[in-house]
Amino acid sequence: MASIADISVSAAINLLSALAFLLAFAILRLQPFNDRVYFPKWYLKGIRGSPTGSTMVKKFVNLDLGTYIRFLNWMPAALHMPEPELIDHAGLDSAVFVRIYMLGVKIFAPITVLAFVVLVPVNWTGRTLEAPGAKDLQFSDIDKISISNIPFGSDRFWAHIVMSYVFSSWTCYSLYTEYKNIATMRLRFLAAERRRPDQFTVLVRNVPPDPDESVSEHIEHFFCVNHPDHYLMHQVVYNANKLATIVAEKKSLINWYTYYQNKFERDPSQRPITRTGFMGCVGAKVDAIDHYTALIDDLSKQEAEERENVIKNPNAVIPAAFVSFKTRWGAAVCAQTQQTSNPTVWLTEWAPEPRDVFWENLAIPYFDLSMRRLLMTVSLFFLTFCFMIPIAFVQSLANIEAIEKVFPFLKSIIEKGSIKSLIQGFLPGLALKIFLAILPKIIMAMSKVEGFTSLTALERRSASKYYLFVLVNVFLGSVITGTAFQQLQQFLNQPSTEFTKTVGSTIPMKATFFITYIMVDGWAGIAAEVLRLSPLIQFHLKNAFLVKTEQDKENAMDPGSLEFATSEPRIQLYFMLGHVYAPVTPFLLPFIVVFFAFSYLIFRHQIINVYNQQYESGASFWPDVHGRVVLGLIISQILLMGLLSTRGTEKSTLVLVAQPLLTFWFHRYCKGRFESAFVKFPLEDAMVKDTLERAVEPNLNLRVYLQDAYVHPVFIGNEFEKPSIIDDEEDNPLIQTTRASHRKGSKPESDSETGSC
Amino acid sequence: MASIADISVSAAINLLSALAFLLAFAILRLQPFNDRVYFPKWYLKGIRGSPTGSTMVKKFVNLDLGTYIRFLNWMPAALHMPEPELIDHAGLDSAVFVRIYMLGVKIFAPITVLAFVVLVPVNWTGRTLEAPGAKDLQFSDIDKISISNIPFGSDRFWAHIVMSYVFSSWTCYSLYTEYKNIATMRLRFLAAERRRPDQFTVLVRNVPPDPDESVSEHIEHFFCVNHPDHYLMHQVVYNANKLATIVAEKKSLINWYTYYQNKFERDPSQRPITRTGFMGCVGAKVDAIDHYTALIDDLSKQEAEERENVIKNPNAVIPAAFVSFKTRWGAAVCAQTQQTSNPTVWLTEWAPEPRDVFWENLAIPYFDLSMRRLLMTVSLFFLTFCFMIPIAFVQSLANIEAIEKVFPFLKSIIEKGSIKSLIQGFLPGLALKIFLAILPKIIMAMSKVEGFTSLTALERRSASKYYLFVLVNVFLGSVITGTAFQQLQQFLNQPSTEFTKTVGSTIPMKATFFITYIMVDGWAGIAAEVLRLSPLIQFHLKNAFLVKTEQDKENAMDPGSLEFATSEPRIQLYFMLGHVYAPVTPFLLPFIVVFFAFSYLIFRHQIINVYNQQYESGASFWPDVHGRVVLGLIISQILLMGLLSTRGTEKSTLVLVAQPLLTFWFHRYCKGRFESAFVKFPLEDAMVKDTLERAVEPNLNLRVYLQDAYVHPVFIGNEFEKPSIIDDEEDNPLIQTTRASHRKGSKPESDSETGSC
Repeated sequence: MASIADISVSAAINLLSALAFLLAFAILRLQPFNDRVYFPKWYLKGIRGSPTGSTMVKKFVNLDLGTYIRFLNWMPAALHMPEPELIDHAGLDSAVFVRIYMLGVKIFAPITVLAFVVLVPVNWTGRTLEAPGAKDLQFSDIDKISISNIPFGSDRFWAHIVMSYVFSSWTCYSLYTEYKNIATMRLRFLAAERRRPDQFTVLVRNVPPDPDESVSEHIEHFFCVNHPDHYLMHQVVYNANKLATIVAEKKSLINWYTYYQNKFERDPSQRPITRTGFMGCVGAKVDAIDHYTALIDDLSKQEAEERENVIKNPNAVIPAAFVSFKTRWGAAVCAQTQQTSNPTVWLTEWAPEPRDVFWENLAIPYFDLSMRRLLMTVSLFFLTFCFMIPIAFVQSLANIEAIEKVFPFLKSIIEKGSIKSLIQGFLPGLALKIFLAILPKIIMAMSKVEGFTSLTALERRSASKYYLFVLVNVFLGSVITGTAFQQLQQFLNQPSTEFTKTVGSTIPMKATFFITYIMVDGWAGIAAEVLRLSPLIQFHLKNAFLVKTEQDKENAMDPGSLEFATSEPRIQLYFMLGHVYAPVTPFLLPFIVVFFAFSYLIFRHQIINVYNQQYESGASFWPDVHGRVVLGLIISQILLMGLLSTRGTEKSTLVLVAQPLLTFWFHRYCKGRFESAFVKFPLEDAMVKDTLERAVEPNLNLRVYLQDAYVHPVFIGNEFEKPSIIDDEEDNPLIQTTRASHRKGSKPESDSETGSC
Repeated sequence: MASIADISVSAAINLLSALAFLLAFAILRLQPFNDRVYFPKWYLKGIRGSPTGSTMVKKFVNLDLGTYIRFLNWMPAALHMPEPELIDHAGLDSAVFVRIYMLGVKIFAPITVLAFVVLVPVNWTGRTLEAPGAKDLQFSDIDKISISNIPFGSDRFWAHIVMSYVFSSWTCYSLYTEYKNIATMRLRFLAAERRRPDQFTVLVRNVPPDPDESVSEHIEHFFCVNHPDHYLMHQVVYNANKLATIVAEKKSLINWYTYYQNKFERDPSQRPITRTGFMGCVGAKVDAIDHYTALIDDLSKQEAEERENVIKNPNAVIPAAFVSFKTRWGAAVCAQTQQTSNPTVWLTEWAPEPRDVFWENLAIPYFDLSMRRLLMTVSLFFLTFCFMIPIAFVQSLANIEAIEKVFPFLKSIIEKGSIKSLIQGFLPGLALKIFLAILPKIIMAMSKVEGFTSLTALERRSASKYYLFVLVNVFLGSVITGTAFQQLQQFLNQPSTEFTKTVGSTIPMKATFFITYIMVDGWAGIAAEVLRLSPLIQFHLKNAFLVKTEQDKENAMDPGSLEFATSEPRIQLYFMLGHVYAPVTPFLLPFIVVFFAFSYLIFRHQIINVYNQQYESGASFWPDVHGRVVLGLIISQILLMGLLSTRGTEKSTLVLVAQPLLTFWFHRYCKGRFESAFVKFPLEDAMVKDTLERAVEPNLNLRVYLQDAYVHPVFIGNEFEKPSIIDDEEDNPLIQTTRASHRKGSKPESDSETGSC
């Protein structure tokens, strides 16, 4: 076990690297030519423009030495913006996200103080490790203030049991307050929101096929009949997945075209050349500009054709639609109720905001959905517990002998001593590194297969999956050495009490490992985040090769966003470490507190100056965050039981049995008390907003407002010529049937596909 | 282990006793003086009147010998009534309940045939038990056709693995079809229902207190604002629990009064005497009729006072109400949506039908509810796993020495040999017997504490609890000998795989025990049910002492009802036994099939002729039944895995791992596909009914129809003089505020407490 000196060295290294990152950041951010990398949010908001210094040099380099002296002055600035302004500036999602870090500080700062005041003296005076009778144990000062220093079966363990209850109570209290605050913030945010299309709109999926009517007619008739006083209009969804692929392809070709065009303009003596084959590396040589012009023309034709096809072909309409209502009340009612006796058709849910829609998943039938979930659950299980198997296989292939066999010409190079050892040290890890790098993408792809219809839902789902992975492979994997699959075997073949005991008793020994982990991943990692190295390089590359106009410059910016799906599960790991070690090794706690405080600072700065969230969900992820903190707490309580029961205190450990039960009950209570604020839509609030709006804007034409709100993004910007669909029953109030087969005349002059009844 | 001969003897005994019960029933039911015991349903329906034979004798005894010969002719009669008529006659709840038995036949009859065709030959030719090298094993013919006869590690186990999949698939298929049928039946039943108050009504609970308004005003304003187009009226709920107690007490006194009155009329020479003390046994002697007249008068006064108090005192109004809407659509919307941003107030749910309301639980605040659930969950745990502890304690007290100490005067009697052995044999079991007899009452009381608001919900909840108890204490308790608490210890201290192995390998040995159990509890027990011994005796006792008028006779009938809370979990035990033993000991299956078929017959007869359901829930219990059958199936699959893994087939057993997962997925799929038909209220159906009603009865006055629908039963029959509450805003359409403090004038001449806005 590492001594305090070892830890100090590690801390020094990590502090220095964190400081280096911060210093680099402080210098880079002051250079005007990096301005769009470090302050993209202000550009997107239109508040900040390109620097217009007097000389050329000043445009690129900051020569005002005074600003360098105050190189850390962004820190107070980041804390300066008050929360309401922050919500207004960055959105509720971001504001609540940084509150997770603040929650960490709130929970662990008092726990740290309490642990040092109460537990450290109790442990220190335990004197087991340095007792004359003790075996020749290797121990450090950290162990002397940890639970390991308490003699077997001592009554001193009561201190830990009581403190565990105190810590849990404090955590639950903080969680409760925070849940309450965030629910209030969300409600206030929703109430203050301006008129938005999704307030009036419901996403209807699984529209059943009708032999006599088109999807659009069927939808209109159904809602005219069942929501006669509230139905306003609807927008059908076109299957534009193919079109979207073409558009994306065309965009990439245009980028290449611009690149060669720029190259040619700079050096008009020589027309740029490319090859027609893979990645421009193989195949016949052609004139690059002509080649890309031809390709783009070709794609444009295809695009126009596909566009025509999507709009004209009735089969391109998928059985889903965005149905809008005259009032928010009507939409709230439709979103929360079941429409027909068959719960697998006419599924209604509150529409995500237009930017948040995941268009590809709108047309999945009910049975398929159910099947996909099953498959993905099984895949997640294998991904979590068996991911080491294919990686070990790849590792066994990717050794030096195998490489020499496939590429004999490399033999002479590889055999050189230094390169050989480099490869041997590097290759086995490479497969794992690559896997871990693409893991978030794999998980996101799995969530997409599951069929969620909004990006928010996809992110939340991916976060759950990632959390499971982190919990099993990072936390448990570090505590019990061995792969997850071996852990699973151990878990199945041991009594459940024995398993907790095994894990619990290993916990104190791993404290130093986790302290180092916190410093590397938490301190230095977060400091690296602020530097934004990859967007910095990308921006300057794009700037050099693609940018011609101000608009291009705008496009070259990559503000990025908070990656909820990967960041949040990582934060949860710190919550769990804190809870697990609070009663065991209090020495770890300050490191956690520093992590949370430092991250809070960094991310607050980032959401103010950098990140640009693509959509706003109104903090709808909070129930997940809350649930996972509680889960971590429960796991820590169970592990403490396991640990204590190996220390000769079986009887007193029984007192701890109630703790996870109470915590679980607390979770259920919070869920019932607050969760509905995040998933349901109270009628009272809808009615208040409706009434207010009617009073303020009595002549609002909602139909015009909502007309093109839910159009597939590939149609936005184009003149979206909507197909004219039968609408000859504008004035015929329907009575009861939704299948009026005699109403089939066509009135092409009708200007809208939708009409209220 | 018992041989086939032993089983035959047991079967013969049980068949004979079942036959004796049936014979007794056949004779008793033909006697006219028992008519009201065996055909109460027809009397309640008014189809059957008291027998009006020509002579006195014929009124009491059936002398037509011809009818005795065809003494089993009620059996075909019971099957004769077609299902739609049965639903009309007995209600959907009862019709669906007997379908559970039919489902058992449908599932297990083909499984039995298949098992005997495939598994019995495979087992029989296994020849392990009679192999010359086999140890000196005791085995019977039953074991020879069970899985025990297959050699260790044999490939023959593949037959069992494949058949297990076949059985599970067939069960799932049957369950799916049945769920689908019952969902259709329920929807048809709901659609065909006549107008009922609960179709228009929503139960609103947790109305928040308002400083400026009474509960009734607050409710009216809230719904006028938030459901302006649909709100019709509401009925507040009075806390009449005390009044209900007084009324019940008075009713019992009146019974005693009638008893003495009758006694006096039959023997006018002597006025009956009673004592004032406990149970009429101690205290001063008084004239019974005068005594009870005085008591009744006293109570009547109290009742009138309390009635006055309830109606006048504003604090007697509890913060809950039944809110009615103009249309079913409006009620469906309100029941399914969240009203305000605080999910703990203004809770709305579809109102139970008036007879189904459990009035005492309407006023429990949210936090209390949550707390009560926690407490009851913990209690249920202790009840299930630790119930033996207090019983063992009572048993240790209730031995002969203890009795002699407390009642020394009994010593001489007890010490007599025969009585002593009787007491010694009888006493220890007595505590357990008493406990098991009152167990359903304990469980029901626990469910009541949990705060459910309808009797249906109470029954369903109690059934879940009882199922847990039966599963742990009857099934597992018989398989692993020892108390549930010991099982729990074993479960915690063994690896989970080891536990399944222990249980699984014990299964084949317990087959004969369960066969006997099925015959005693299933065959003879069900036959006893048809005899209705306890209601028979009670009816004749009441008839002798209390009955004077035809009305009294009506009241003396006790038709009883299907006790869902206790019967259904018992059926589930048979489903589970069937599934567990199907691949292991096919010999048990015919007993299960006979049980299901016989019960189907008996209960079909009972629901046609006897039982009178108190309320109708439209088979809303089916999802529970389905879920528990699936749970039993999953348990059986896991136990089979445990069993096979002890027989040297670890590898092939892995094939079985997928089975519980697939079954669980099947359950989830069915839940998503059908459950909402049992818990939600589709708007389309509501709209169809509304439209139809508007067309047929355009002038229906719904307000009058609903006026007294939801009145506490103690007020029914009395002239319920409703308190006149302020209603001066009949013509003032409210705009937005629910707290219009200036509207506080009183208009006592208003005839209704409620008015639409």
